[in-house]
Amino acid sequence: MTQFELTAKNRVQRVPKRGSYDKETVYEIIDQALIGHVGFSVDSDPYVIPTLISRQADRLLLHGSSTSRLMKHIQSGAPLCIAVTHVDGLVLARSVFHHSINYRSAVLFGTGELISNADAKMEALRLFTERLVPGRWDDVRPPNEVEFKATAVAAIEIDLASAKVRVGPPGDDEEDYNLPVWAGVLPVRQQYDEAIPDDRLDPAINFPQYLREFIDSH
Amino acid sequence: MTQFELTAKNRVQRVPKRGSYDKETVYEIIDQALIGHVGFSVDSDPYVIPTLISRQADRLLLHGSSTSRLMKHIQSGAPLCIAVTHVDGLVLARSVFHHSINYRSAVLFGTGELISNADAKMEALRLFTERLVPGRWDDVRPPNEVEFKATAVAAIEIDLASAKVRVGPPGDDEEDYNLPVWAGVLPVRQQYDEAIPDDRLDPAINFPQYLREFIDSH
Repeated sequence: MTQFELTAKNRVQRVPKRGSYDKETVYEIIDQALIGHVGFSVDSDPYVIPTLISRQADRLLLHGSSTSRLMKHIQSGAPLCIAVTHVDGLVLARSVFHHSINYRSAVLFGTGELISNADAKMEALRLFTERLVPGRWDDVRPPNEVEFKATAVAAIEIDLASAKVRVGPPGDDEEDYNLPVWAGVLPVRQQYDEAIPDDRLDPAINFPQYLREFIDSH
Repeated sequence: MTQFELTAKNRVQRVPKRGSYDKETVYEIIDQALIGHVGFSVDSDPYVIPTLISRQADRLLLHGSSTSRLMKHIQSGAPLCIAVTHVDGLVLARSVFHHSINYRSAVLFGTGELISNADAKMEALRLFTERLVPGRWDDVRPPNEVEFKATAVAAIEIDLASAKVRVGPPGDDEEDYNLPVWAGVLPVRQQYDEAIPDDRLDPAINFPQYLREFIDSH
């Protein structure tokens, strides 16, 4: 299956031409993001929490303290909604009305469970670390038993999802193209600056090659 | 009142020392963000939608199509939760466990209503446009009657809120500082690149000074 099912829940209602239910599109948006915003309901009251995300095939992985409210809520099997958003540009049109944002967003629906199998959980922790900086996992001290227990990893089966993407120049009204107004797109991107070594770093320790490559590739 | 009330709903549970209920801190996080993630519940099912945000005193402003699901839901007076998040850096510790993210996040709770007064609504639209790029409102064609009616603006009274902020270097376990591992912070920031003029832009139109200043100041 390469498309998510289309239901009233995940249907893109506003500007449907920007919507997509294609798995590849949704997964690319997830894979390029560090964080997602997880929504859940308690007694019909909505809560939204930002958290690191990772993906493993058709599952979204979240992690946190074993004692956290979010992890306990996920464990209860309650429905979740996770939004992942990239802002790519400010769309500066000739009229106020057509100002917009270029963006890529994905909205996922599903329920989760905590990963109890130790090997699967360790693999998930590896994915989270490698997602921050590829190559990091093999360089650092792995989790000890206490740390491993203190961390919960949730796997959320993505039941439904949609992507919504806006790209390109402003779409002005035909008669506005004659206005003497500068129009175009101001691109926005996430930029990594030069790394700041820890004050307590041994000066004999070299800056790792994988980190150099990671910074240079962004 | 300079602090939000502290209740079970907005209390920062994990790592309470990172939490704040100070209005100034919360509002600064909002004011530096373009988008927020709005959570709401329908029949106990959670939904999260990314959207542009703006602030007017103690109210958060959202706007959208008058026909949108979110705007109709806000109009019904249902409870909302809005999260606003900035990622500031990757915290690269000597152990997997102490890897983290430097971030500033705010979580707001409240209910909203649509702004019906025409002057107040026009002022809110001005705030949204000026928030994208200061100086833009006076340069472009204002909303006409049809556009004005097609746009809904919601004002959400911020009843409760909290901020959560992590800054600084990794906090490694004392015995790990001897490990031969590079540790520190990789700063992340949102960067504006050079503006891309619309293909149909009249080459006689100069690049506006306010836009030049906006790009240079980021």
